[in-house]
Amino acid sequence: MGTPFQLLKTDTATQARRGRLQTRHGVVETPIFMPVGTQGTVKSITPAHLHEIGAQIILGNTYHLNLRPGSELIRDLGGLHRFMGWDGPILTDSGGFQVFSLAKLRDIRDDGVAFQSHLDGAKLFLGPREVMRIQQNLGSDIAMVLDECPPWPCERDACARAVARSQRWALQCKQIATESGFLAAGHHVFAIAQGSTFDDLRREAAEALSALDFPGYAVGGVSVGEPEPEMLKQVAATTPFLPANKPRYTMGLGTPPQMLKMIALGVDMFDCVLPTRVARNGLAFTPDGPMNLRNEKYRTDPRPIVEGLANYTSGFSRAYLRHVTLAGEIISCTLLTLHNLHFYLDLMAQARAHLESGDYGSWHRSWIERYEAGAAARVAG
Amino acid sequence: MGTPFQLLKTDTATQARRGRLQTRHGVVETPIFMPVGTQGTVKSITPAHLHEIGAQIILGNTYHLNLRPGSELIRDLGGLHRFMGWDGPILTDSGGFQVFSLAKLRDIRDDGVAFQSHLDGAKLFLGPREVMRIQQNLGSDIAMVLDECPPWPCERDACARAVARSQRWALQCKQIATESGFLAAGHHVFAIAQGSTFDDLRREAAEALSALDFPGYAVGGVSVGEPEPEMLKQVAATTPFLPANKPRYTMGLGTPPQMLKMIALGVDMFDCVLPTRVARNGLAFTPDGPMNLRNEKYRTDPRPIVEGLANYTSGFSRAYLRHVTLAGEIISCTLLTLHNLHFYLDLMAQARAHLESGDYGSWHRSWIERYEAGAAARVAG
Ligand SMILES: [Zn+2]
Ligand SMILES: [Zn+2]
Repeated sequence: MGTPFQLLKTDTATQARRGRLQTRHGVVETPIFMPVGTQGTVKSITPAHLHEIGAQIILGNTYHLNLRPGSELIRDLGGLHRFMGWDGPILTDSGGFQVFSLAKLRDIRDDGVAFQSHLDGAKLFLGPREVMRIQQNLGSDIAMVLDECPPWPCERDACARAVARSQRWALQCKQIATESGFLAAGHHVFAIAQGSTFDDLRREAAEALSALDFPGYAVGGVSVGEPEPEMLKQVAATTPFLPANKPRYTMGLGTPPQMLKMIALGVDMFDCVLPTRVARNGLAFTPDGPMNLRNEKYRTDPRPIVEGLANYTSGFSRAYLRHVTLAGEIISCTLLTLHNLHFYLDLMAQARAHLESGDYGSWHRSWIERYEAGAAARVAG
Repeated sequence: MGTPFQLLKTDTATQARRGRLQTRHGVVETPIFMPVGTQGTVKSITPAHLHEIGAQIILGNTYHLNLRPGSELIRDLGGLHRFMGWDGPILTDSGGFQVFSLAKLRDIRDDGVAFQSHLDGAKLFLGPREVMRIQQNLGSDIAMVLDECPPWPCERDACARAVARSQRWALQCKQIATESGFLAAGHHVFAIAQGSTFDDLRREAAEALSALDFPGYAVGGVSVGEPEPEMLKQVAATTPFLPANKPRYTMGLGTPPQMLKMIALGVDMFDCVLPTRVARNGLAFTPDGPMNLRNEKYRTDPRPIVEGLANYTSGFSRAYLRHVTLAGEIISCTLLTLHNLHFYLDLMAQARAHLESGDYGSWHRSWIERYEAGAAARVAG
């Protein structure tokens, strides 16, 4: 099977890459951040807002959408793109991660996971066949295979079993997607390499899945509670054993510095609820660390959150944003979400530009330095 | 003092009027509905959304904005228009109504009202001088005088005292606005005629205030708990005694049929929280009455809320709107608020068009008939 990913440039000082991924709903320039639309909406903003801030691709959650409103309903209404009014690319996860983190009474078996809905206790089952059928119903541009994500920390034996099971499921998902015509129709399926903190298991997983020639790969099982150095170590233990000509994705990550560090390790795609979630608490990202708009010092501040980052939110003063945040107004969520997502997307655009100009290594180090110094000063002050 | 209001046409079958009001921030075509922006935001939508749906003028609440973030702060940041990012006309109320409905420990005196903030219990005072100063700080295009709104039902003596006091305050407000240069700078001040259900007091109030030659007039003390026929009777007892060449406004009203009936009684301007408030409960206005999007029957409905009403929300199916409403997503508030406000604004545009074509009387009766029949059928079904 051919690959729709073009590796445009590889950095010399780091393992960072500049790439381009073709999907059924358009091109994605990498490295890229994907806003998260859990329940068929990127919380508190409209698809028109997403276009305004240059979002290229968003993420949908299979677990949530399958419980409510149901993937058949979405299929019957023309697929997730039409349902939610977003006609750009959509990546969907397999739902497996939410089964482990949200559902009740999980029973993991060789053929899949039996569990109870966290909404109404209904008994449900997700195996390779189910997750591929659901993602086909949704019309995902990029579907993820079902995997077993071991906890952190994790015993070596348990981890090895999870790796082996994830590998079998990945193969089954690919066979199902081939037989159903999903892959031939230009939808992508990404495999997920697990292995927790065991470098040899990471390599084994990455190599075995690489041999299966998936359109893309995720580094799984990171950001599950481990400290950041451990997280980066796991990514560094995986990416060298993934094919260079396929996109790489770390799921559920991360802070701005974490993303820049992972790009330097050869990661191309990210998704994270952080920019949307903290927006609902009055927090805005800036090049000098997160800004808490509830702070008294912004009471009369006429400046936008970040000078030079032009978007709809930048037309409003910090003083106004503080006011609507303290007043509990929904517009605060909307405007801060818009800003935070734009900040993340703009950071990826800067990363791409510096990859093109060849100074990614020095640029990302100084960017992180400024961010962390600012964050430390804010905590201190 | 001249009037910036042009009476373009008076209906022959009803007392309805087609007019045009000039303000410092542009022209308002009447009859018109004004979306309510209580705390410096029309809840859950952006000023850009307001422009998209053709909002001409919005309302701000003096009581709320004065408590938080404070009118001096807003003045120092360039006024309410710049603060909230809305450069069209803004009408502000005097704050008096909220003092009566929200504040604690009210003490009404001849020079104003002493009360405690409902937010933090701070002791505050609003008299004619205070309400005019606050509205000047906000930069209101249309400021309202301080008035005393008698409750319903109300004793005749108490009502007469409220009418007399309101009249004195109105005169004081006008004097203050004249001395401060507020009126000369093109800001308007509207008087408020009270009188509860006493026709002679209504007439007395309207005539006395008319003699003071305000730029516009409100029919006060309606929609304070009285049944609809009583409400319409009070409006009918007031408008004939207001000058024909000045705009007329009923505060805090109403349902779509109520607005159409009041237009037939000679009212030009409305504001109401109904379209924004019910949006947050999953209710959408339609020509066949309100639609509850939580209803099971919309589960797979691919149609927009109202066919032929084109706006951003009309790109989404009833099924999608039901889903995001049941899932408690903010996008539901945003999309339904957008729809409901557009429905109200479009209804006013239709009223203006039928006033121009000369068939307002028959059109508004058949519009109300369809709406009420549909609403009754929905309740029955
Ligand atoms: Zn499409
Ligand atoms: Zn202006």
